[in-house]
Amino acid sequence: MTDIAMIEAARTRLAGRARCTPLLASPFLDEIAGRHVLVKPECLQHTGSFKFRGAWSAISGLDPAVRAKGVIAFSSGNHAQGVALAARMHGIPSVIVMPSDAPRLKLENTRAYGAEVVLYDRATEDRDAIGARLAAERGLTLIKPFDEPLVIAGQGTIGLELAEQAMEAGVDRAAVLIPCGGGGLISGIALALEARAPGLKPRPCEPEGFDDVTRSLASGEIERNPAMAGSICDAIVTPSPGRITFPIMKRLCGAGIVVTDEEALHAMALAFDRLKIVVEPGGAVALAAALFHGGEVEGDTVIVVASGGNVDAALFRRALERFAG
Amino acid sequence: MTDIAMIEAARTRLAGRARCTPLLASPFLDEIAGRHVLVKPECLQHTGSFKFRGAWSAISGLDPAVRAKGVIAFSSGNHAQGVALAARMHGIPSVIVMPSDAPRLKLENTRAYGAEVVLYDRATEDRDAIGARLAAERGLTLIKPFDEPLVIAGQGTIGLELAEQAMEAGVDRAAVLIPCGGGGLISGIALALEARAPGLKPRPCEPEGFDDVTRSLASGEIERNPAMAGSICDAIVTPSPGRITFPIMKRLCGAGIVVTDEEALHAMALAFDRLKIVVEPGGAVALAAALFHGGEVEGDTVIVVASGGNVDAALFRRALERFAG
Repeated sequence: MTDIAMIEAARTRLAGRARCTPLLASPFLDEIAGRHVLVKPECLQHTGSFKFRGAWSAISGLDPAVRAKGVIAFSSGNHAQGVALAARMHGIPSVIVMPSDAPRLKLENTRAYGAEVVLYDRATEDRDAIGARLAAERGLTLIKPFDEPLVIAGQGTIGLELAEQAMEAGVDRAAVLIPCGGGGLISGIALALEARAPGLKPRPCEPEGFDDVTRSLASGEIERNPAMAGSICDAIVTPSPGRITFPIMKRLCGAGIVVTDEEALHAMALAFDRLKIVVEPGGAVALAAALFHGGEVEGDTVIVVASGGNVDAALFRRALERFAG
Repeated sequence: MTDIAMIEAARTRLAGRARCTPLLASPFLDEIAGRHVLVKPECLQHTGSFKFRGAWSAISGLDPAVRAKGVIAFSSGNHAQGVALAARMHGIPSVIVMPSDAPRLKLENTRAYGAEVVLYDRATEDRDAIGARLAAERGLTLIKPFDEPLVIAGQGTIGLELAEQAMEAGVDRAAVLIPCGGGGLISGIALALEARAPGLKPRPCEPEGFDDVTRSLASGEIERNPAMAGSICDAIVTPSPGRITFPIMKRLCGAGIVVTDEEALHAMALAFDRLKIVVEPGGAVALAAALFHGGEVEGDTVIVVASGGNVDAALFRRALERFAG
């Protein structure tokens, strides 16, 4: 299981590889939120999302002989790109299994980062069977997207950075709002903050209609989303919290905050205008929560993780048309 | 005159006030440029441009009794916002003199940062006379945008950061491409690099038709732009290089690189897609030079300053429509 020692070890392995992202702020956002808002822009991380940290942590943590044979992942999104680049930087092969109807751009990006992309037909083929066969044939190691201790440890390095940056900013008590899919990001951050900055309290943020973590934390049991499609926040839509991540969230996180797609788009436009960063809808739900759900948060400062920026230009333009300038 | 000791002193005054911006990169940009591209995103600086550094340096360097009376600046752009915020953070009044036809958004932003905005009619009123009268009446100190040693020292702190960040990245020889208007930014960086990383060579970048610095460096004399309007790169259009900055540029900078408006828009779209940052046209000319004028640059690594991100949403959308997705 992931603990602070594993997170510290992951940080050592990530040193000089992952970017230490800065903390950003704007008086304009403070005014909207009614409190000071500090934003950790993981969209500036390699491959445009925090997923690179977990991928690097997991791959660098493998036994060298095992690692040399290569890795495999199931993903059409940010995890795919993180694994592909981390594998290439290690000089090892990576195979990414994607549905054949995945957006062409994501497919091309993943290939450009050096991965072999294997497509499957969602209607007729079994993804797991394909992956298992490839893994067995080639000796590939599966890198899971969130329910994996080394991946959680990698995401936890964000918590270590946050603990230090908050202290430098004179902040020792605050809610830390974090976009949440399967819970790898928030679990890692929660474990790091528990050890290094216990006054910083993680809160998961989700899109309306896909609030499995919020409902799970409320009921105390793992709840599932009724559907997997239909949110613009696709990067953080997962069926349910993970078996490893949920107990960590239950122990360490405050209540979830649910935002609408419109609020996520509005937050993207404000991040463009006031922070000069590009955030994808799923990456913007925590900023949306800070700006538009302030009543659900306590304290005079709130910390926000902007977890990714891989949004296509058409959707970004839509956010700007509706909410900027 | 600005020297390395003044730049180091400015850095001390800026510590904990200005952001130390990271160095970003993307394999996709490397592929376009044909070499490794490192980008210093000053668009992430307070107020969305490097100008905050110079403004803070100048205001914090004033005698406290003089400073307390307040400051004044002539600007409708990034310098105005930098001076306004730096003044507010010092708890002193600021007056910004702007033409009455300045974009409403810039006017509102400058006011929101705490400045008193005084408008004048470009056709019938004399800006300098208005400024001189206000300064005399209220004892305000004029903060010039670039031809001022303390401002140059503030911008030079970017050079100190770059010298350290390049060394960490293992880069000791590279061209440093820098958007150039009056030359305050590049002069400060050039002085810092001369002292701390002499293998890093500054090169000014300008938009086509407004290449006064490029022509001045070629002729050895201060040359003027034929016009002041008509470029989308308005943030870096000035009549001519400064009297203080030009001799520094002449001594320390390589030849200028001139890019088209189209290339600047294309670079903005690539910065959106590959770096997840928002860059304004004038702030993108150095990235455009790295990506599309590689033949004018030597070496296997190029460093780029993305100097600002204050672009309105309509123009940003135009860049995305043309060149992204």
